[in-house]
Amino acid sequence: MKFITIGEILLRLSPPNYEKIMTTHNLIMNYGGAEANVAVSLANLGVDSTYFTVIPDSDLGKSTISYLRSNDVHTKHIIKTDGRMGIYYLEEGVSVRSSQVIYDRTNSAFSEYDYTDVDMDEILKDYDWLHLSGITSALSYNCRRLIAKALKSAKKFGLTVSFDPNYRKSLWSFDTARDVLSTYLPYVDVLIGIEPIHVYNEDGVTDVKDGLTMQPSFEEMDKVFRAIDKQYHMKAIARTVRFAHSGSNNSLKAYYYTNGKTYESKLINFDIVDRVGGGDAFSSGLIYALLDNMEPQEVIDFAVASSVMKHSIHGDTNITSRAAIMNLMKDGSHDIQR
Amino acid sequence: MKFITIGEILLRLSPPNYEKIMTTHNLIMNYGGAEANVAVSLANLGVDSTYFTVIPDSDLGKSTISYLRSNDVHTKHIIKTDGRMGIYYLEEGVSVRSSQVIYDRTNSAFSEYDYTDVDMDEILKDYDWLHLSGITSALSYNCRRLIAKALKSAKKFGLTVSFDPNYRKSLWSFDTARDVLSTYLPYVDVLIGIEPIHVYNEDGVTDVKDGLTMQPSFEEMDKVFRAIDKQYHMKAIARTVRFAHSGSNNSLKAYYYTNGKTYESKLINFDIVDRVGGGDAFSSGLIYALLDNMEPQEVIDFAVASSVMKHSIHGDTNITSRAAIMNLMKDGSHDIQR
Amino acid sequence: MKFITIGEILLRLSPPNYEKIMTTHNLIMNYGGAEANVAVSLANLGVDSTYFTVIPDSDLGKSTISYLRSNDVHTKHIIKTDGRMGIYYLEEGVSVRSSQVIYDRTNSAFSEYDYTDVDMDEILKDYDWLHLSGITSALSYNCRRLIAKALKSAKKFGLTVSFDPNYRKSLWSFDTARDVLSTYLPYVDVLIGIEPIHVYNEDGVTDVKDGLTMQPSFEEMDKVFRAIDKQYHMKAIARTVRFAHSGSNNSLKAYYYTNGKTYESKLINFDIVDRVGGGDAFSSGLIYALLDNMEPQEVIDFAVASSVMKHSIHGDTNITSRAAIMNLMKDGSHDIQR
Amino acid sequence: MKFITIGEILLRLSPPNYEKIMTTHNLIMNYGGAEANVAVSLANLGVDSTYFTVIPDSDLGKSTISYLRSNDVHTKHIIKTDGRMGIYYLEEGVSVRSSQVIYDRTNSAFSEYDYTDVDMDEILKDYDWLHLSGITSALSYNCRRLIAKALKSAKKFGLTVSFDPNYRKSLWSFDTARDVLSTYLPYVDVLIGIEPIHVYNEDGVTDVKDGLTMQPSFEEMDKVFRAIDKQYHMKAIARTVRFAHSGSNNSLKAYYYTNGKTYESKLINFDIVDRVGGGDAFSSGLIYALLDNMEPQEVIDFAVASSVMKHSIHGDTNITSRAAIMNLMKDGSHDIQR
Amino acid sequence: MKFITIGEILLRLSPPNYEKIMTTHNLIMNYGGAEANVAVSLANLGVDSTYFTVIPDSDLGKSTISYLRSNDVHTKHIIKTDGRMGIYYLEEGVSVRSSQVIYDRTNSAFSEYDYTDVDMDEILKDYDWLHLSGITSALSYNCRRLIAKALKSAKKFGLTVSFDPNYRKSLWSFDTARDVLSTYLPYVDVLIGIEPIHVYNEDGVTDVKDGLTMQPSFEEMDKVFRAIDKQYHMKAIARTVRFAHSGSNNSLKAYYYTNGKTYESKLINFDIVDRVGGGDAFSSGLIYALLDNMEPQEVIDFAVASSVMKHSIHGDTNITSRAAIMNLMKDGSHDIQR
Amino acid sequence: MKFITIGEILLRLSPPNYEKIMTTHNLIMNYGGAEANVAVSLANLGVDSTYFTVIPDSDLGKSTISYLRSNDVHTKHIIKTDGRMGIYYLEEGVSVRSSQVIYDRTNSAFSEYDYTDVDMDEILKDYDWLHLSGITSALSYNCRRLIAKALKSAKKFGLTVSFDPNYRKSLWSFDTARDVLSTYLPYVDVLIGIEPIHVYNEDGVTDVKDGLTMQPSFEEMDKVFRAIDKQYHMKAIARTVRFAHSGSNNSLKAYYYTNGKTYESKLINFDIVDRVGGGDAFSSGLIYALLDNMEPQEVIDFAVASSVMKHSIHGDTNITSRAAIMNLMKDGSHDIQR
Repeated sequence: MKFITIGEILLRLSPPNYEKIMTTHNLIMNYGGAEANVAVSLANLGVDSTYFTVIPDSDLGKSTISYLRSNDVHTKHIIKTDGRMGIYYLEEGVSVRSSQVIYDRTNSAFSEYDYTDVDMDEILKDYDWLHLSGITSALSYNCRRLIAKALKSAKKFGLTVSFDPNYRKSLWSFDTARDVLSTYLPYVDVLIGIEPIHVYNEDGVTDVKDGLTMQPSFEEMDKVFRAIDKQYHMKAIARTVRFAHSGSNNSLKAYYYTNGKTYESKLINFDIVDRVGGGDAFSSGLIYALLDNMEPQEVIDFAVASSVMKHSIHGDTNITSRAAIMNLMKDGSHDIQR
Repeated sequence: MKFITIGEILLRLSPPNYEKIMTTHNLIMNYGGAEANVAVSLANLGVDSTYFTVIPDSDLGKSTISYLRSNDVHTKHIIKTDGRMGIYYLEEGVSVRSSQVIYDRTNSAFSEYDYTDVDMDEILKDYDWLHLSGITSALSYNCRRLIAKALKSAKKFGLTVSFDPNYRKSLWSFDTARDVLSTYLPYVDVLIGIEPIHVYNEDGVTDVKDGLTMQPSFEEMDKVFRAIDKQYHMKAIARTVRFAHSGSNNSLKAYYYTNGKTYESKLINFDIVDRVGGGDAFSSGLIYALLDNMEPQEVIDFAVASSVMKHSIHGDTNITSRAAIMNLMKDGSHDIQR
Repeated sequence: MKFITIGEILLRLSPPNYEKIMTTHNLIMNYGGAEANVAVSLANLGVDSTYFTVIPDSDLGKSTISYLRSNDVHTKHIIKTDGRMGIYYLEEGVSVRSSQVIYDRTNSAFSEYDYTDVDMDEILKDYDWLHLSGITSALSYNCRRLIAKALKSAKKFGLTVSFDPNYRKSLWSFDTARDVLSTYLPYVDVLIGIEPIHVYNEDGVTDVKDGLTMQPSFEEMDKVFRAIDKQYHMKAIARTVRFAHSGSNNSLKAYYYTNGKTYESKLINFDIVDRVGGGDAFSSGLIYALLDNMEPQEVIDFAVASSVMKHSIHGDTNITSRAAIMNLMKDGSHDIQR
Repeated sequence: MKFITIGEILLRLSPPNYEKIMTTHNLIMNYGGAEANVAVSLANLGVDSTYFTVIPDSDLGKSTISYLRSNDVHTKHIIKTDGRMGIYYLEEGVSVRSSQVIYDRTNSAFSEYDYTDVDMDEILKDYDWLHLSGITSALSYNCRRLIAKALKSAKKFGLTVSFDPNYRKSLWSFDTARDVLSTYLPYVDVLIGIEPIHVYNEDGVTDVKDGLTMQPSFEEMDKVFRAIDKQYHMKAIARTVRFAHSGSNNSLKAYYYTNGKTYESKLINFDIVDRVGGGDAFSSGLIYALLDNMEPQEVIDFAVASSVMKHSIHGDTNITSRAAIMNLMKDGSHDIQR
Repeated sequence: MKFITIGEILLRLSPPNYEKIMTTHNLIMNYGGAEANVAVSLANLGVDSTYFTVIPDSDLGKSTISYLRSNDVHTKHIIKTDGRMGIYYLEEGVSVRSSQVIYDRTNSAFSEYDYTDVDMDEILKDYDWLHLSGITSALSYNCRRLIAKALKSAKKFGLTVSFDPNYRKSLWSFDTARDVLSTYLPYVDVLIGIEPIHVYNEDGVTDVKDGLTMQPSFEEMDKVFRAIDKQYHMKAIARTVRFAHSGSNNSLKAYYYTNGKTYESKLINFDIVDRVGGGDAFSSGLIYALLDNMEPQEVIDFAVASSVMKHSIHGDTNITSRAAIMNLMKDGSHDIQR
Repeated sequence: MKFITIGEILLRLSPPNYEKIMTTHNLIMNYGGAEANVAVSLANLGVDSTYFTVIPDSDLGKSTISYLRSNDVHTKHIIKTDGRMGIYYLEEGVSVRSSQVIYDRTNSAFSEYDYTDVDMDEILKDYDWLHLSGITSALSYNCRRLIAKALKSAKKFGLTVSFDPNYRKSLWSFDTARDVLSTYLPYVDVLIGIEPIHVYNEDGVTDVKDGLTMQPSFEEMDKVFRAIDKQYHMKAIARTVRFAHSGSNNSLKAYYYTNGKTYESKLINFDIVDRVGGGDAFSSGLIYALLDNMEPQEVIDFAVASSVMKHSIHGDTNITSRAAIMNLMKDGSHDIQR
């Protein structure tokens, strides 16, 4: 099974040791981006994983390629061009301070590239699974056209399509995002997250999610999943529920729907080393579990464990092994292993 | 509104990453001192803030000035002279280990300076608020005379005077401190902390605070506040109550008295990144809230939130924004902001 | 009272800041090894402490000597020879990730040394207490012969012998370890830990510890202690009970048996800075308390406090003072000390 | 005497320890930009120094302000707005490797700002000296209009204007730069560097500098200076001559023309710690020497010493004292001072 | 053209900032090994490069793979097995101190692996160039058998074979090395270095290199090259001549022989950042130049420039670009590039 | 042969990587002091070495002891008391910047200690060699009395006394130093350095050293040595001659006089990693060579090589081996050793 994903990879710059941007004098380099994070985590789990993006033809671009290769992600389709590397500055949260992101990604090489001559059929025909997120469509019209092409090619060659709407309020408005992203859902098989998309009530106007809280009950969630499935016909839908007690401690669980039935994972409480990429590690855990043909309850438990594990790791990705995630999922020993 | 404070600023040297002094091979440089911490935090909150001190005329002194200026604290009154920079070595507490301070501040330029020719009237006449702490008077007789002069000038020009008794047992005895500091109270408008000062019972001998625990009830606190107000006539009195569960986790609340009424803040539990300066951030939060004309309950909630926030930051001062403190005070989101 | 211990000291290499071996680019150097850890902690507590081992005659060996000397451990018996320094790579646990050890200690100078000409009588005759652990016997036949010699010499000169079986599954099988280590028990006065050793039921075949959980009740533990004492005649037996809630938070208590009576310490919950050496700090605390002639309940409370304290310190050893451990043991203040 | 300069300040990100961008995992933060460097160096020498720029209204912008303030540069005219902070990545040269800069400054807040409503008269009327560089005009048409306004205001209020053409080939073509920058020269009093500007031979077509090498003789230089003075009427003209033996070792001297006479400094050979800002330290040294009313030979010797000194300091600016530069200029002791 | 090389890759551990092993508290991780260094440098120059080795099946092994992949070296033939990773500790030389290596590579997974079942024909049949060094044969008999197999397969499939005898006195005796390595020469096309190999005078007993100094004249070198060619029939022979003025400054040139003619490169003097891998960068430069069909004089100048460039880079390999090496080779600008 | 020395040990705090105190944010910890440096270097060379001083009874004092012990210096006579640890801040020189020291050593525990009850006879009776420097006498009258006692005891028990006048202008005036230190010379056997001491011409008023430059000729030096010997009767006299070309590069040679004959060492040019302690490493080299009974020419060559070697090492002391110094002294290989 060959996996591919498309999106923008960013240089992540963060102060060390939970210092603030105002006081730091150096910045730790990492790379992030919703889709790149999924590609890297899946490659670390042993999946044949490919990433398509556009990067500047400079030593920064080469370093990015080097990062992906070091994680065994295939980079052969990546385009090098003039332009700049998108950046995000991250002040990592700790104690009562939450993590803060400053984006510096406008005018990036990826968002400004003209994808007219990129042959998506030629790229996607050799893969089995395509993963996308809503962030790409928020970046530029060029990017939206790229996503549209990718969805059509994926359909044409029968790839399973997973999609994480991944709303970022600093990039576009909720309403625009909902309108645009909803048009992708007919192409989507596995939906990860439920906003911002239109799921109409019978009146065709109001949204079935109106009034839904961030921590819904099983019954509420089940109702929404059924409505999404009815409207868009999904193989699987999943979403996490996060309780952010502080910048250093959260609890996480998830709901999962497949074949007409909703599942709920355990709730795990955990300390946080690095908050970023927690959602992407949920996606990669979910996709891995599906590729691995786990049972529905295992699928959602594995996905949550993958996400929780990521919070204990510096950087955007869950680079632990299947065994480590399994140990957490099954509540194995937390004591030293030697 | 123009704020000024007077005191000694120390070079703070602490091992990185919660290492011990016995095992470390380098020391992180910060600057601290009760009054400097208040000046810096207020400047970061946008208050026009000035700091008066005496520093050595060397690159260490210049670095100190540079630190203050970088935080937008005005330094024009600072005196450069021969002598040494006071130091404190800090072993930051973590887990079951509490923070440890080794003072090396005797014979400092500040404590040995002869303030005879310093014209406090000339300095203070342009300000609206003067903040002092009891530490200065513990350093030397020269320093005590400086404080006496400052109090008189402040009265003369109608400045609001806030005072934090801030007892340090390694610098002087409790009894001496109480005798000396009590003489300042007639000049004080805002009292932050209630020891070591004389608050006599009707017998004029025993202290109303005798037998008061470190974590008093609302009723006990109210009674003490009333007695202080009766004896010294304060615009406002405040004190924190700390529960030090471990070196890494504390809870904090505060009591506040103004216009004949006592208020109690919420109790906040929090993880600790750096314990030092927690009390000073309470002072700066309180002064800011008063300058900002908040309601009494807001005043004390803001002051506690300011103090709690400081514990999540490396270094002696709360350099976060008003918005960040407000978010904590109102129990806003702890999740990542992007 | 003069203390000596024998064993292998390893170079410990661990990524900084809870990074993973897969992502780190530098390694923090420390030294560890069960017996060396005990020697160093005891020296820091003021005990006259000597360590015997074999190290390579290179700058790595010199650095090891330098480490021991800096902690006031006597090194005069240490043998320098050709060969390599044993290493262990440590990925420190945090949050839901547990600590991971990769051993690289085979073919070390210590394990391959021919101890035939080492005169244990000559070495041990000047000491009062000998501490050993089961790890040494797991390393090689040469090492087993060394331990056998040491036990006989210790008996001959009347040293008190403490022994920590300290099973390491990556070094040898449980069954082999149990057979070998049980033969040492007749020479042992103070037993620290209860596995892997044979403690037969009356049938002489099944083990009284069969079915014992990792967190036994007082009654279960009392029964086992009595059986051990009956079979092997110990002055004292102790063992810890650990609850590993996560890689960052554990609880610890211990049981202690002496003169026919079992004692139970308080249960302490604590955050973890560095998990390694927690058991050895229990041993050093226990030995120190015995050398200090504490009462039985104090002995076990001091040993647990010593172990808990170690978890708050980077590196393998508890280098805090008696006063700091006492403060923790007596539940003293956790607030800053200045 | 009050000094002001206008330009773009960039976040400088460079690998530590002469690592390469391809291999580094963190980036040291500094700030740079030709005009900011001059402002900072002059403030360190005691000149009343003000810097005008546009920065993003974020923690990165605040850090920039903090950097300037810490160096005693006045920041009151600085505009905070939406947009991004310009960046340059610097791979510091060492041995046979030369320093490499990757610019990421397009679309910065400074270059995109609409300066229509900025009242340059209002800003410049209180100053005595204005310094500009050619880089600003390379950034955008908005910036060129800003420079035009500034030159006119400076003329109006009688400020001395110093100008460093400072050609950057990655920002614009040599021909465009020469055409644009030459139009500024009638407003310039002190010219620092001689390219890219038009200095016509008598034919009014060819350039007197045609065929001039990078290391001209005194006679060649004298001829060019006279031609520039004849065409543009300068108070002073200066340029450095650099011999880049390697990335770690250079030699530097300079020529200086004033009142119809050309001066040549000593040639100094020196090791390089950090190459960037060497030219700006020449400018700041020159401006300082002129403000200090040194003799012509001293002016150029001080300027060269200032530039050489900068190469021994990490970061973009010469933050040493007048005394240290004087010691170097006068070939004082290089041995330890204690 | 597809390149492959076979050898042992070592974890390199070195103190930062030219500290000594005796005083350092952390170790920088790199990877090295003569053949791996060549593979990595060639991949960075754009050559399709593959590396065969044996590594432990642990996170250390995974990190090694990750390092190779990040440099675009193909790793598909690498065998993961039980065992340990070879290490070398490096104290980097500076000033009058020379670099010092402590090997800890005995009993490594690579040296102890049984290569009986490794099908070299199957591996090598797809490649055009095989590079080997004499170090592998010094490690174990297993390794010698591996090399013998590789040479035969290479001959069978017509690969060009380059060989660097690379004598290491701490691994085996000069005489043994010479006997063993001389037997490989009939299979070798490109010989890099001239010791330790037998090159008999006409008497068939004495060696033509007897009495040859480390810095021979052109005539001496020419004579030796001709003798080697006569005896072994090489396509090309090359060797460097190093003048180690100090631990921080060397000069380097090289001699090169092909088609019956000897060439001499320029002598380059340079400062040293990191000495290790200088010889391997000569090999990679030479192989690259041959693959690139440069003229003989260019071949040897490029190889020397590649080696010199490596000395300016931390780590074992020259990861600069063709353009950077060309610039050095052609004595281009050493000044900053922006 | 047992060696002892007496003096003040200071905490040395220096910015990393040749940063300036004005810009650094952390300080590297080392320990220094002329006599401690000699004790440490001699211990590293294998001499039985003891150090007497007074340190504060705190974790800083314990760290100091730990540093000495780690270098195998005996610490049993060291007195722990109240008071502060002397400090020196060091800005390490590089390129054209020279090293800068800021002393903060007044009121230190060592300088303020009352040595009345210290029994120097009891301490010195077991040693063969006593080393002193002039710095101690510059610190306080208490210290001068200590030195006077030590000299008398040394004479009484027949110790060889070496003395380095080591003038520090920031501690006392040249004239006072000369008067005081000259009174010690009748007790001195080995004089290291020739200022500030009185060496009268025949007129008994003018000094034979009047007009002597810092880099005297052999003949000038010979004349001075003879005059010193005539006046004070020394076993040996030595002094270095330093040429400080820059902060990063010096040349060093030395003159040596014994038994009526003057010797001159080679002149060595070298790059500087860390300038401090260069003189003390000359002393330790000289003392070692004398203890080792080298020939006069070897004595001075070894002492110079020891000093040069120190300049290549971070920290105050030469911790290399006899072999490494010998290799430098004999102009051995500078290339990598593996």
